[in-house]
Amino acid sequence: MSKIIFDSGISLDGYFAGDHRSTANPMGDNGPTIHNWMFKQKAFWKNVNREGGEEYGNDSLLIDNVFARTGAYIMGKRMFEEGEVHWKEDLYKTDVFVLTHEKREPWVQKGTTTFYFINDGIESALEKARKSANGKDIRIQGGANTIQQYLNAGLIDEFFIHIAPLFLGGGIRLFDGIDKNKYNLEIAEVIPSNLTTHIRYKLTKK
Amino acid sequence: MSKIIFDSGISLDGYFAGDHRSTANPMGDNGPTIHNWMFKQKAFWKNVNREGGEEYGNDSLLIDNVFARTGAYIMGKRMFEEGEVHWKEDLYKTDVFVLTHEKREPWVQKGTTTFYFINDGIESALEKARKSANGKDIRIQGGANTIQQYLNAGLIDEFFIHIAPLFLGGGIRLFDGIDKNKYNLEIAEVIPSNLTTHIRYKLTKK
Repeated sequence: MSKIIFDSGISLDGYFAGDHRSTANPMGDNGPTIHNWMFKQKAFWKNVNREGGEEYGNDSLLIDNVFARTGAYIMGKRMFEEGEVHWKEDLYKTDVFVLTHEKREPWVQKGTTTFYFINDGIESALEKARKSANGKDIRIQGGANTIQQYLNAGLIDEFFIHIAPLFLGGGIRLFDGIDKNKYNLEIAEVIPSNLTTHIRYKLTKK
Repeated sequence: MSKIIFDSGISLDGYFAGDHRSTANPMGDNGPTIHNWMFKQKAFWKNVNREGGEEYGNDSLLIDNVFARTGAYIMGKRMFEEGEVHWKEDLYKTDVFVLTHEKREPWVQKGTTTFYFINDGIESALEKARKSANGKDIRIQGGANTIQQYLNAGLIDEFFIHIAPLFLGGGIRLFDGIDKNKYNLEIAEVIPSNLTTHIRYKLTKK
């Protein structure tokens, strides 16, 4: 059965993205530095259909694993719009469900990526993603607000965070306004690295 | 030579203390849950002159170590006032420098703890702590605002955080308004535990 997951990098002060996000600055000021560990990995570039990266070790395996386990993605409209102009064709290789008020026909890319635009809420998107994922996991890709909505609805089963050793000083926090009464959290796995700290949590509803 | 350190527990959403702090509620709403891992350790209770705790393992060793390496403490007035009514006599077993606008004679406790009340700023407190610590480390005990002042002044050499697997949902964040241009951070040590995640960082000024 599909798990509902997210897998996000944050700064040590908890930011998911920097200030002044736009299509020209898609992760916000200094936001990309949160993902420096990822940009060094061959696995990241391979999975997003590009050449690049220097390293292939434990950090890379985590990247391969999350791509491999994911059978459908859900993302917010803002992340979609910021990414749309930058992503290579067929990056996601699954169905991607975009939460938006905009009516738009599915965007079928060459390969196996199709973007569906969902106008009737997070549970509807999840239901459609579940059918599409065919037993694989459903990844809530972001942004922070979309992840917060799924967390506070009690719908997340498990997540990875990657805590970068740097301060961003401002921006959009991943964990903001989280309902403290929704879950019991268990530390499932801690994977030390000199680049970032990977921690996996399992959630059970209270 | 003394290092300037802090060693703080935070929730997964980054809170150092909960809302509604007072002498009757010294860590704020649900704030004590951040430290559940610590309250389970014999080492914690022993070091604060009380009986208690069930466990003595790696988590306990970290507690013994930070007490052992610390030769002087610095804390904010609010933390002092909230703690003063609860702490056992001679808890700190060193000099403690309290940042305050209040003029007050040193409070010499039985044993080796003396509280000094410092009215002329964080660098003055540090200078006095350095003389007192006699080569051992100087721990900025808290609260969050005091730690932020020392961080943003570029005075911290190293710190431990202990990230508890829970959301607090509100309160006072440890890393808020941190100057992103002050330090390069290095992950010095990650100590997994099923109770909390211990991470030690080393800082060098940019």
